Amino acid sequence: MGSIKVMVNGMPGNMAVNVAKQTLQDERFELIHHSLTGPEIADTEYFIDSAKIMLIKPAARDQAITEIKQKEGFFVSVDYTHPSAVNGNAEFYCRIGLPFVMGTTGGDRKRLLDTVSASSIPAVIAPNMAKQIVGFQAMMEYASNTFPGLFEGYTLEIKESHQKGKADTSGTAKAMVAYFNKMGINFPEQDILKERDIEVQKTRWGIPQEYLGGHGWHTYTLVSNDKTVRFEFTHNVNGRDVYAKGTLDAILYLSKKVNASTMGTVFTMADVLKGN
Amino acid sequence: MGSIKVMVNGMPGNMAVNVAKQTLQDERFELIHHSLTGPEIADTEYFIDSAKIMLIKPAARDQAITEIKQKEGFFVSVDYTHPSAVNGNAEFYCRIGLPFVMGTTGGDRKRLLDTVSASSIPAVIAPNMAKQIVGFQAMMEYASNTFPGLFEGYTLEIKESHQKGKADTSGTAKAMVAYFNKMGINFPEQDILKERDIEVQKTRWGIPQEYLGGHGWHTYTLVSNDKTVRFEFTHNVNGRDVYAKGTLDAILYLSKKVNASTMGTVFTMADVLKGN
Repeated sequence: MGSIKVMVNGMPGNMAVNVAKQTLQDERFELIHHSLTGPEIADTEYFIDSAKIMLIKPAARDQAITEIKQKEGFFVSVDYTHPSAVNGNAEFYCRIGLPFVMGTTGGDRKRLLDTVSASSIPAVIAPNMAKQIVGFQAMMEYASNTFPGLFEGYTLEIKESHQKGKADTSGTAKAMVAYFNKMGINFPEQDILKERDIEVQKTRWGIPQEYLGGHGWHTYTLVSNDKTVRFEFTHNVNGRDVYAKGTLDAILYLSKKVNASTMGTVFTMADVLKGN
Repeated sequence: MGSIKVMVNGMPGNMAVNVAKQTLQDERFELIHHSLTGPEIADTEYFIDSAKIMLIKPAARDQAITEIKQKEGFFVSVDYTHPSAVNGNAEFYCRIGLPFVMGTTGGDRKRLLDTVSASSIPAVIAPNMAKQIVGFQAMMEYASNTFPGLFEGYTLEIKESHQKGKADTSGTAKAMVAYFNKMGINFPEQDILKERDIEVQKTRWGIPQEYLGGHGWHTYTLVSNDKTVRFEFTHNVNGRDVYAKGTLDAILYLSKKVNASTMGTVFTMADVLKGN
């Protein structure tokens, strides 16, 4: 088996650069030295060490992609762009016939799924590429379906910490609230304790200095009403490597699906985890 | 619906007394004031507040149970006795036709299941009656079956603390090792860190003084090989109330099964949790 060609769109964004770096270091992949970028980006190229990546603006993308397809043959596209670009990019990939991994959050998600379903390509679409966190969420979903009311009479505390720039509450924490509700705990989303203060993150949470700019820490604490039982679940992610690694797994999975001629199908990270 | 009559065997043992106490305080149950006890017990009666419980030695149990059945009609038996009594007691319950909840651990578990299967009664048999912990174990089992290899490349630490008298390693921790192994972590059972030192439990674990004599604390920590991801799962139980409450749920469940004329069937706490 040869290596899989990958085009990572969204450079010079953090996640796109991180995934591109990983593909450069990994023999299973070959990075295409082009990346779709936003209309607001002034630079025309971006360097990852000595690798020069040409940045392609929306106006130039149709012609550029035709040339890239001609030169490279089959490749997988990865999208870490911007919520405002999600739907437009998906329609572009589908129109050109480019199987893609969508790691960008936001946009109209329903329309995103419909776009792929009506197309001739398969895609992996996942708001969270961290495999182990996706697995943990699946565990909680399973419990909430299988044992509704399991934690009746328990009180819940949820706290999360993310880099200062993240304005909204953690999507993972919100998804977990829905599972805990099903398990018998009356807990509204707005009770999630959201930490964005760098000083508190350093001193009280113990988050390492180098990850203050990029982390996702979550702790869920359940206490029985007689206070004799305490459950605590924690998942702490520093940096973005785990998401990049999950993206690589999604690329491998998608390329298998392309070989099996799977058309118009949306896969999730749970599918990638199951691997079938 | 009237209250359910319950005979709790194993007094004056801690768990039997705890369950009996709970039934005395709970209108859904009516405690039968007799309890099977071991041959080594000198006392012939035991007081829970003002309630006098007659203790029945093995030699006297056949005659006593005939009289109790005549007087009380239908009742559910609960067994918190001794590992050495598990199989003999189960055979006794089956011979007399007494549906039972077996909370006693140990004995020949295969023979125990066979005894019930060949009988005309249903039974709930569960080495762990804490509903939420059973639910958590089921979650991990689900993940290990659905996502084998989920934690590949992770290191694991398991530590547990129990009262000084507990000689063996936590059975729950051992069950969890099997799930983690399936999820890709090479971790042998003997690496479980077992705390039985009262001073360490007090000072380093922060276990409350009043629960040093009866607690089960467990923490599982998973760290990715690049150290950027950390999962931690904790379940801490103080005292025995959660097990007693789970036992009450098992009694309710079993009595429904008796009404539905379910014969020769073994149910687990997972069945009780699902409630169907």
